[in-house]
Amino acid sequence: MSRLVLLCEQLIAGDRRALARALTVVEDGTDDERREVITILHPLAARARIIGITGAPGVGKSSVADALITALRARDRRVGVIAVDPSSPFTGGALLGDRVRMQSHHGDDGVFVRSMAARDRLGGLAAAAPAAALLLAAAGYDDVIVETVGVGQSEVDVASLADTTVLVMAPGLGDAVQAAKAGVLEVADVLVVNKADQSGAGMLESELRTMLEIGHATLPMDRAVDASPAWVPPVLRTVAVRSEGIDGLLAAVTSHGELLVAAAHAAVSDGGHVTTRELRRARRWVGELALAALRSRLEATDRLDVLAAEVAGRRLDPLRAADELLASLGLDRPHVEH
Amino acid sequence: MSRLVLLCEQLIAGDRRALARALTVVEDGTDDERREVITILHPLAARARIIGITGAPGVGKSSVADALITALRARDRRVGVIAVDPSSPFTGGALLGDRVRMQSHHGDDGVFVRSMAARDRLGGLAAAAPAAALLLAAAGYDDVIVETVGVGQSEVDVASLADTTVLVMAPGLGDAVQAAKAGVLEVADVLVVNKADQSGAGMLESELRTMLEIGHATLPMDRAVDASPAWVPPVLRTVAVRSEGIDGLLAAVTSHGELLVAAAHAAVSDGGHVTTRELRRARRWVGELALAALRSRLEATDRLDVLAAEVAGRRLDPLRAADELLASLGLDRPHVEH
Repeated sequence: MSRLVLLCEQLIAGDRRALARALTVVEDGTDDERREVITILHPLAARARIIGITGAPGVGKSSVADALITALRARDRRVGVIAVDPSSPFTGGALLGDRVRMQSHHGDDGVFVRSMAARDRLGGLAAAAPAAALLLAAAGYDDVIVETVGVGQSEVDVASLADTTVLVMAPGLGDAVQAAKAGVLEVADVLVVNKADQSGAGMLESELRTMLEIGHATLPMDRAVDASPAWVPPVLRTVAVRSEGIDGLLAAVTSHGELLVAAAHAAVSDGGHVTTRELRRARRWVGELALAALRSRLEATDRLDVLAAEVAGRRLDPLRAADELLASLGLDRPHVEH
Repeated sequence: MSRLVLLCEQLIAGDRRALARALTVVEDGTDDERREVITILHPLAARARIIGITGAPGVGKSSVADALITALRARDRRVGVIAVDPSSPFTGGALLGDRVRMQSHHGDDGVFVRSMAARDRLGGLAAAAPAAALLLAAAGYDDVIVETVGVGQSEVDVASLADTTVLVMAPGLGDAVQAAKAGVLEVADVLVVNKADQSGAGMLESELRTMLEIGHATLPMDRAVDASPAWVPPVLRTVAVRSEGIDGLLAAVTSHGELLVAAAHAAVSDGGHVTTRELRRARRWVGELALAALRSRLEATDRLDVLAAEVAGRRLDPLRAADELLASLGLDRPHVEH
């Protein structure tokens, strides 16, 4: 029996160290190793509910996640956490004066936290995060919380991994406008005004409601298809450090998940039980894996360096250089279905 | 003469509306239109200095950019600005209560501001931003300032577009640690402690110096190659809203640029004058354009939807699905040089 088959068996049996090692394999292992682990676990893993928690730094995103974990544990749900935000206390990187606040679940076997770096990863987080979520599901975690910073393309990508995306905001940070401009509002299923005991919370809440009304009329096409017409993102108030409003948040997340499942019969033609979010997630995962394979072929060739020097020296324009690069790798052929 | 040839001629002649329209063409036009504009302008454009300004929200990044523009204008340099940060006042999107502070250069023909959205762009900003910089250079702008939020993969990508990257921080935001963890510190050529009149500025400055010392010993390989060994990122203090320290910042940016040019003879084999940053930029641009072409082929096929449904239903694992997707498009062939 191969080393990785054994590792996967240990993971399924609930061995935390095996889970940690398997996560390292899918993140940083060779292509063959990653392939073996995913091939073994993919058919076996139960479905976990994936909850995305996103928001700007300073809004108390991690406190909301922490309180949500406590609420889920009280309901006897096992919780995996993928912390993508590099500044999250979940990541636990004790760099210089950085204090790791998030120790409350330490020693609880029903909670497993994993941090992921956004940078320099083949295929990006869009490929690595679903693999990590799969492993957590296979290890018996019922809920997977993915915590990301709500700015930038890669973070929005990761939010699209979730069944339900919670956008956390706080008064006094001008977040409503920033989020709307960054497009984060569009991907949120549940909006949370955290630090609701601070002044400005009421104004933020009404700003958000106004924006949701405007946004509802101008939803991009793919979102309109993706979102259930019956779901209007609720705006909830929390004071996460005192666990206030967290039961309401959990109820909203659960309602949204139930709606997704109820609508699932429309999503697949063969009568299978797959939600639109699961389809979208799989589509992106497959697409990113295919692109990652192509990217590594592009990066591996010396031809790119030669062409780049020509472009930098203005002897070749970049579009023609890209054509030549694709041609040199045999990737320029017209579309052939077979 | 085609419409786009005329447009490019008007752009080169200094017509601002032609520049704005050409930017729209390279951002949102068809592939053929984009190709025509870049093919015409690429050999003609002078080299502009590209200055990246990055940092977390709230550090006064836009104030630093604004003061730098004023300083450059006083030296009779024409300045183009590409604002990628969706919350930047440069972008000017007057959404609800958002106040646009950045009006000081309005009516100055030597300043041209363009905002770009990070989302939903084919090939991402990594492909669109260099094209925009090229157009600004062709239109006679000497300096191009690219303003980005210093979090997330796409923003770091855009910072890699610059000849010189300025990282702006401010006391009291815990930025030093966050930046170090996010890897932003690694890409900075010049560090700015803005709001240096506020308490904590001295501490932030010494934290940054400590981190630079640690970081210097652990630079990733590609950075060590890329960075000039003679350059140690300076830590400068500014109070941008009062233009304090801006002359020093401009001097540091200029010194760094001169060092890049002085080291350029080592960068190319044929005696041409290309800096390592220009090579890196061209390499990334060509690579992203090639990937964008491949991505649109992947996205265009119905096969991806079919495979995604199989994966979501657990009847196929995602890696095999990616293989099948590539095979269905004829992209699975082994490496062939020709």
